[in-house]
Amino acid sequence: MQKNTILALSLLGSQLINAQQQNLVKYVNPLIGTEKMGHTFPGATVPFGAVQLSPETDSIPYAVNHKYNPRVYDYCAGYRYEDSTITGFSHTHFNGTGHSDLGDFLIMPTVGKLQLNPGTAKNPESGYRSRFSHSTEKVEAGYYKVKLDDYNVIAEMTASNRVGFHQYTFPKSDQSHIVFDLNAGIYNYDDKNTWTYVRVVNDTLVTGYRQTRGWARNRTVYFAMTFSKPFKNYGQKNEDGQVDYKGFWRKWNQDQNFPLIEGKNIKMYFDFATNQDEKVKIKFAISPVSQSNALENLNAEIPHWNFEQVKEEAKQNWNKELNRIQIKASEDHKTNFYTAMYHAFINPTTYMDVNGQYKGLDQEVHQAKDFTNYTTFSLWDTYRALHPLFNIIQPTRNNDMIKSMMKHYDQNPIKMLPIWSHYANENWCMSGYHSVTLIADAIVKGTYNGDANKALDACIVTANKRDYEGIGDYIDKGYIPAEKNGTSVSNTLEYAFDDWSIAQAAKKLNRMDVYETFIKRSENWKNNYDSSIGFMRPKLADGSFKKEFDPLSTHGQGFIEGNTWNYSFFVPQDPIALMNIMGGKKSFTKKLDDLFSMHLPDEYFADTEDITREGIIGGYVHGNEPAHHVAYLYNWAGQPWKTQEKIRTILDMQYKPTPDGLGGNDDTGQMSAWYIFSALGFYSVQQGADEYAIGSPLVDHAVLNLENGKQFEIEVKNQSKKNVYIQKIELNGKKYSSFNLKHQDIVNGGKIVFYMGEKPKK
Amino acid sequence: MQKNTILALSLLGSQLINAQQQNLVKYVNPLIGTEKMGHTFPGATVPFGAVQLSPETDSIPYAVNHKYNPRVYDYCAGYRYEDSTITGFSHTHFNGTGHSDLGDFLIMPTVGKLQLNPGTAKNPESGYRSRFSHSTEKVEAGYYKVKLDDYNVIAEMTASNRVGFHQYTFPKSDQSHIVFDLNAGIYNYDDKNTWTYVRVVNDTLVTGYRQTRGWARNRTVYFAMTFSKPFKNYGQKNEDGQVDYKGFWRKWNQDQNFPLIEGKNIKMYFDFATNQDEKVKIKFAISPVSQSNALENLNAEIPHWNFEQVKEEAKQNWNKELNRIQIKASEDHKTNFYTAMYHAFINPTTYMDVNGQYKGLDQEVHQAKDFTNYTTFSLWDTYRALHPLFNIIQPTRNNDMIKSMMKHYDQNPIKMLPIWSHYANENWCMSGYHSVTLIADAIVKGTYNGDANKALDACIVTANKRDYEGIGDYIDKGYIPAEKNGTSVSNTLEYAFDDWSIAQAAKKLNRMDVYETFIKRSENWKNNYDSSIGFMRPKLADGSFKKEFDPLSTHGQGFIEGNTWNYSFFVPQDPIALMNIMGGKKSFTKKLDDLFSMHLPDEYFADTEDITREGIIGGYVHGNEPAHHVAYLYNWAGQPWKTQEKIRTILDMQYKPTPDGLGGNDDTGQMSAWYIFSALGFYSVQQGADEYAIGSPLVDHAVLNLENGKQFEIEVKNQSKKNVYIQKIELNGKKYSSFNLKHQDIVNGGKIVFYMGEKPKK
Repeated sequence: MQKNTILALSLLGSQLINAQQQNLVKYVNPLIGTEKMGHTFPGATVPFGAVQLSPETDSIPYAVNHKYNPRVYDYCAGYRYEDSTITGFSHTHFNGTGHSDLGDFLIMPTVGKLQLNPGTAKNPESGYRSRFSHSTEKVEAGYYKVKLDDYNVIAEMTASNRVGFHQYTFPKSDQSHIVFDLNAGIYNYDDKNTWTYVRVVNDTLVTGYRQTRGWARNRTVYFAMTFSKPFKNYGQKNEDGQVDYKGFWRKWNQDQNFPLIEGKNIKMYFDFATNQDEKVKIKFAISPVSQSNALENLNAEIPHWNFEQVKEEAKQNWNKELNRIQIKASEDHKTNFYTAMYHAFINPTTYMDVNGQYKGLDQEVHQAKDFTNYTTFSLWDTYRALHPLFNIIQPTRNNDMIKSMMKHYDQNPIKMLPIWSHYANENWCMSGYHSVTLIADAIVKGTYNGDANKALDACIVTANKRDYEGIGDYIDKGYIPAEKNGTSVSNTLEYAFDDWSIAQAAKKLNRMDVYETFIKRSENWKNNYDSSIGFMRPKLADGSFKKEFDPLSTHGQGFIEGNTWNYSFFVPQDPIALMNIMGGKKSFTKKLDDLFSMHLPDEYFADTEDITREGIIGGYVHGNEPAHHVAYLYNWAGQPWKTQEKIRTILDMQYKPTPDGLGGNDDTGQMSAWYIFSALGFYSVQQGADEYAIGSPLVDHAVLNLENGKQFEIEVKNQSKKNVYIQKIELNGKKYSSFNLKHQDIVNGGKIVFYMGEKPKK
Repeated sequence: MQKNTILALSLLGSQLINAQQQNLVKYVNPLIGTEKMGHTFPGATVPFGAVQLSPETDSIPYAVNHKYNPRVYDYCAGYRYEDSTITGFSHTHFNGTGHSDLGDFLIMPTVGKLQLNPGTAKNPESGYRSRFSHSTEKVEAGYYKVKLDDYNVIAEMTASNRVGFHQYTFPKSDQSHIVFDLNAGIYNYDDKNTWTYVRVVNDTLVTGYRQTRGWARNRTVYFAMTFSKPFKNYGQKNEDGQVDYKGFWRKWNQDQNFPLIEGKNIKMYFDFATNQDEKVKIKFAISPVSQSNALENLNAEIPHWNFEQVKEEAKQNWNKELNRIQIKASEDHKTNFYTAMYHAFINPTTYMDVNGQYKGLDQEVHQAKDFTNYTTFSLWDTYRALHPLFNIIQPTRNNDMIKSMMKHYDQNPIKMLPIWSHYANENWCMSGYHSVTLIADAIVKGTYNGDANKALDACIVTANKRDYEGIGDYIDKGYIPAEKNGTSVSNTLEYAFDDWSIAQAAKKLNRMDVYETFIKRSENWKNNYDSSIGFMRPKLADGSFKKEFDPLSTHGQGFIEGNTWNYSFFVPQDPIALMNIMGGKKSFTKKLDDLFSMHLPDEYFADTEDITREGIIGGYVHGNEPAHHVAYLYNWAGQPWKTQEKIRTILDMQYKPTPDGLGGNDDTGQMSAWYIFSALGFYSVQQGADEYAIGSPLVDHAVLNLENGKQFEIEVKNQSKKNVYIQKIELNGKKYSSFNLKHQDIVNGGKIVFYMGEKPKK
C-alpha cells in the first residue's frame, strides 16, 4: 500500500471502521427458537422484509365448527422442529408471536400422483406433504434448504424484501407438480378465507390475491408469481364447490387450464416434466395493494433468475445489519448474540411496495412520502427493549416505524395509536397503550425527526379513550374496578407507566400542563397496591380489594401473562417509590430475592402462557415480558451486584444456541432485544428516560456502529462465566460510578470499560 | 324581434333546431314495467348513471340453506307495484333484467322504537319497513317521492351520476332514525356478503364498502355518505356475531358510537331528534375503486345541499337526452315512447369515478383515458336493438361502451369479450357471443372510432374459444351435439348469426380471409334445421336429430328463452335462405302466420320465462328476445304489409302506459329499444348490415337530432290506429320503393315521409 493511500484511509476515520465488515452471518442460526415455545421460523427473509418464506410442518386450525383448539398456538410460526413432515413453503410469518395469523400462499413441489390436500403427519402418503430430516436442512440468514424425502426434491429458498425465491431440484419425472394451496395458512379456521382470486396470465406468470378474516379481521395480500420454466398444464380444485369462476352457468367444459379462478378455498397445481436434477424456480412477490404492484416489486427486486446472486445479496444484507454491533465473545455467545440480532431485525416488517404505495388502516391505498411504511407492531412486547434498541442502532427505521404508527393514527376513525397492529388491521391485543411509550422514548432521546408535538398529541388522545379497557375509570378513580375488566391491574399499572412516558415527552417539549396531568396519572399504580399483603391486587368499584386472590396464579387475577409476583414490580417509572411502599430496601430486595428463588408449583406453571418450564427462574417468568426489567431493579435498592448476578443467570438459562434455546416466544424480537441489551451490559428500564440501567456485560468487547458515523465501544475486562460482578467502570477514560448510562454518552460515541471480578462489589 | 336577430337565427340552421328542447320528461312514467314481469325500478337515476336510488318493497332470497327459491326473480328490481310496504331505498338496480344482483346500501328512515330487521309484509310492525300507498307516490325521471305511512315520513330522492340524494321530512320526534342495512340486497342468499366495512369519520360523514359474492362472484362497491345534520348517536348490529371490529378481545365497553365496524352482516342506525317537518338529507356516493374516490365523486357532483337543484339538474339531464328524438304522437304514445327512451338510457351504467379510475375485470384499478368506462352489459338482449339504436342516436356513448368491452377483453386472462358483464365480473349468462355483433355493427356502419382491426381481432379470438359452450364442436361439426350442451340449438343459431356479423366487419376492413372463414361459419344454422318437421331441432353427435322433441316447449329442447317456433326463424343473416329451406315464400309466410295466430296451451306458457300471458301473441313471444326480428321477416317474403300489421299489433299489445304495461322484462332497455325503433318505422334486423327493415311507424312525426348536428325527419301522413299500412314512401322528396332504410340516409340527415292507409298495399 502506498503511503498516501494509508494517509487517506486514516483520515477517513470512523467511516472506514464502519466499512470493515466482519462475516457475522455465520453466527446466525435461524433454527434457534423453532422448538418448544420460541415460535420463530427457520425460513428465508431479509431484515424487516415483507416476505418470510419458510417451511410449514403442520397446521392446527384455530377452531373447527367454532370449537376453539388451544393447540393452534403451537404453529404460530408454521414450523416446529419436533415435526418430521413438511406441508410446503409459504411466504408470510410472524417471528415469535404468541398469537398468530399469516402463512399466505403455500407452495409445495411434489412428484407422482397429484394430491391437493396436505394429508396427515401420521400418514404423509395421504396428501402432498413430505417427510424430511433435519440432517438435510441448511438454515442460514436469508437461505433455507431441505430435502423432501418423499419426492426426492431438494427445496431451496431465499428472498429479497418483497419477493420469495424458490428453487426446487426435481428428479426425472413426467409427473412433477407445483402445488399452490391458497386455502392453507396459519391460524386457519373453517371460514378464514374471505376470498381468493387467481389469474393465470400466461404459462409462466400467475397473479391474484388472498383475503382473510383471521386474527386480522380483514387482510388482503396480493401476489405475482413467475416460473423459470413454462408449466405444461395447470388446474384447480375449489373445495368450497359452491362458487367458482365458471359460475352458476357452467359454460366451460374444461377443468384444466382455465385461467381465471375465484372462490373461498382454492387449491391449484402446475404440472411439469422434469429431467434428473432439473431446477424449477419460482419468484413470488407480494404486495399490500395490487397484483400489478406485486409484479412491479418482482421485476424491481429480482429481474433475473440467478438464485445464488439473490441468496448472496440476502446474506450481505443481513451482514450489513449485523455489523451495526460487532462483538468479541465465545462462539456460543456470538451465536446467541447474532441470532438475537437476526431475530430483532425481522419485525416490524415492510408494508409498502417499491413504488411507495401501501394499504392504510382505512383500507385505502396511500402513497408514502419520505418514509418506509412498516407493519407488525406487537407493541406490548416491543416497547420495552426492541424499540429502545432501534432508537440506538436503527434510528432511521425507528423513526419510520413511528411515522407508520402516526399514519395508523391518522387513518383510524377511532383516532388511536396502534395497540397490536398488522397488515392494516388493529387487533387490540394485550394491555396498555404502549405505542405512546416508544414514541415518548424517541422524543425524549431526541431521535424522532417527525413533528414531535403532533406525535405527543396523538399519545394524549390515545391515553384519553375513556371507553377503551377501563381508561375512563382509570382517569376518574385512578384504577380500574375489577368487576369491569379482566385485566384491571395490569392495565392500571401499564397505563401509569405509559402516562409517565407521556409526561417525560411533554417535559422535553416544554408542555408543562401535559406533564403535570400525566405525571399525576403515573402514580395510579399505587391504587392497586395492597399493603396488607404486599402485592398489587385487583380492586373493586367500592374501593375494597377483591377478596379471592391467588398471588401465584396468572389467570383470572386481574393480570395478563404474569401473576402478581411478576406484576407487583411493574413500576419502572419509580422504583424508589415502589421500594418505599413495599417497606424499604430490605423488604424490597427480599421480595426480589424471593421472586428469583421461590418454587412455582406445576399447577401454576400450567396456566402461565407461551413459555416453557425452563422459561422460569424461581417465580420470575422471563418467557413473558412483564418482569423483563425486574432483575435491574436491584440497582435502585443499592444492590447492583444482584442485578449483575441475575442478569447473567437469565442470559445463561434463557438463551441457548439450540432449537429449543428460547424459554418463551421471541415476541417479534423483544426477547432477543433483551438479550442484546443485557449482553452489552445495560438495559432500557425506563422508556422515556434518557438513560439505561447497567447490568453485567456478557461480551468481551463490543462496538456499536451508529448511523451518525460515531462508535460506542464497550470493553469488558476479565469477564468470564464466574466473573459476572462489576468491580469498576470507566467512561471515556474516567471512572464512572453511576449504574445508569446516559443515552447521549452512547450516541456521542466513546468508550466504556467494565472491569469484572468474581466477587460482588458491595 | 329585430331583423338582424332573425337573420342570425336562421343562419344558425340545424344547431338552432337542436337547441329548441321540448319538455319531454313529462312523458316519462318510471312506474311503467314495475308491475308483473317488467322488472323496471321506479327510483331516481340520471342517464347511464352509476346510481339508481330506488325503493325496495321486499326481498326474496336466492336460496336459503342452498335451496333455490324461484321467486327470487320477482324482485330483480327490488320494487313491485303490487306490494304495499317499502323496506327502504337502496342505491343500485338493474333495469328490467331477468337475472339479478345489486340493491346495495339500503337506507330507511324510521321513527319510534328502533328495529334493525325489515320485518314481514304481513306484519310490517315486526321490522323497520313501512306501509305506503301509490296515491302518495310521485314518480318522475330523476325523482321519486313517497310517504312512509307507518312513520309519517315523506321520502324524496334524486340523483346525479354517482350520488344518490335522499331527503326525508320527519315528524317531531326524539326517536328519529336512519337505518343503514348493509346486509339487505337483491338476489341475497345466506352468505352473499363477503365483507362489509364502515368508518364513521365524523358526525356527518360515513365511508366504507360492501363486497358480495352474488350473481357477480366478486363485487365491491365503495361508498361515502354525508348527512345534512349531525346524528346524535349511531350504532351497529352484526348479525353474524362471529367477528366484529371490537374483535376477539372485546376491549371496548361501548356498543354505540364505535366508529370502525367490520363484518359480514352489518346493520347500522343513526339517531336524530327532529322537529315537525324537519328535513334530514343524505348524499350517498358510490365508487368502484375506493372510499376516497366515492368522497371525491360526492364533492365533485353535489357540493351543496340544495335538493331541488339536483332534482332539476337530473330532470334537465333527462330532457336533454330525450330530445335526441322529438316526436309527435298521441299522449299515450308519447308516454310509451319517452318512457321507452328513459328505460333505454339507464343501462349500461357508468362504472368510473370522476377522476377516471375504475376497477377492471382483473380486479385492479385502472385509469380510463379518453373514454367513459361502462358496465352492465346484458348483451344477449341488447345487441339486437339497444346498441343499434345507440349507434344512431348515442354514437359517442356506444363507442365508449365498445371501448369498455375491449378493456374487459384486455383485462381478461381468458381473452374473451364480455357475455353478460357487470361490476368487473363476467357472468356467462345466456347463449351466443353477441358482443362481436354490436362491435361489427359499429364497424360496418363506420361509427367505431377506436382501432377497428384490434376490435375485430378480439371478436375473432372470442369466436374461437373452443372450450366455451360447444364452440369447438360448432367449428368442427357445424353444430353442437345435443348431448353436450343444454342450449345446443340456440347456441348454434346465435353463433352462426354472430359469425355473419364478424364476416361483415371483416369485409368492411378488407380482411377477406376472415370474411371467408366466418361467412362459411354463418351457414351453420342449416345443420340444425330438420326439414322433416320444418323446425330447428337438436342434433346428436352421430348426426341424427334428437328423437324426443316438443316444438312448443322451451325447456330441455336445446334452446334458451324460446321454443323452436320462435327460434326456427332465427336466421336474421339470411331470411331468403331460411325461406327457401322452409319450402319457399308461401310455406314460410304460412309458418309466420301460424306463429302469430296459434294458441300456446297454458302448460307451455308456464315454462316460458320472464314474461306475462300478455307477453305472447299466438305463439310469438315478445317478452323474450329471440323472435324480436321475426315480425319484420315478412318483408323478405314480399309481404311487408304483414310486417306492418304485426308490428302495430305488437306495439299496441306489448307496451302500455301503465305499471303492468310491459309484456316481459325490459331487459336493460332492449324491449324499449324495440319499441323506439318500431314506433319510428324501422328496425335493426341484421346487426352488421348498414340498413334497417321498414315496419309501420306509430308516430305522426319524428326528428332524430344526431350528434353530427344533422337531423333525420320522419313524417307519417294519415297515420292512425287503423291506418297501419304503408301506401307510399318518399325519401328526401323522392319516391322510395325499398323496404330497407340505409344507415347513411339517416346519419346524413334528411327526411322520410310515410303515407299510410287502412288497406294493405300488396
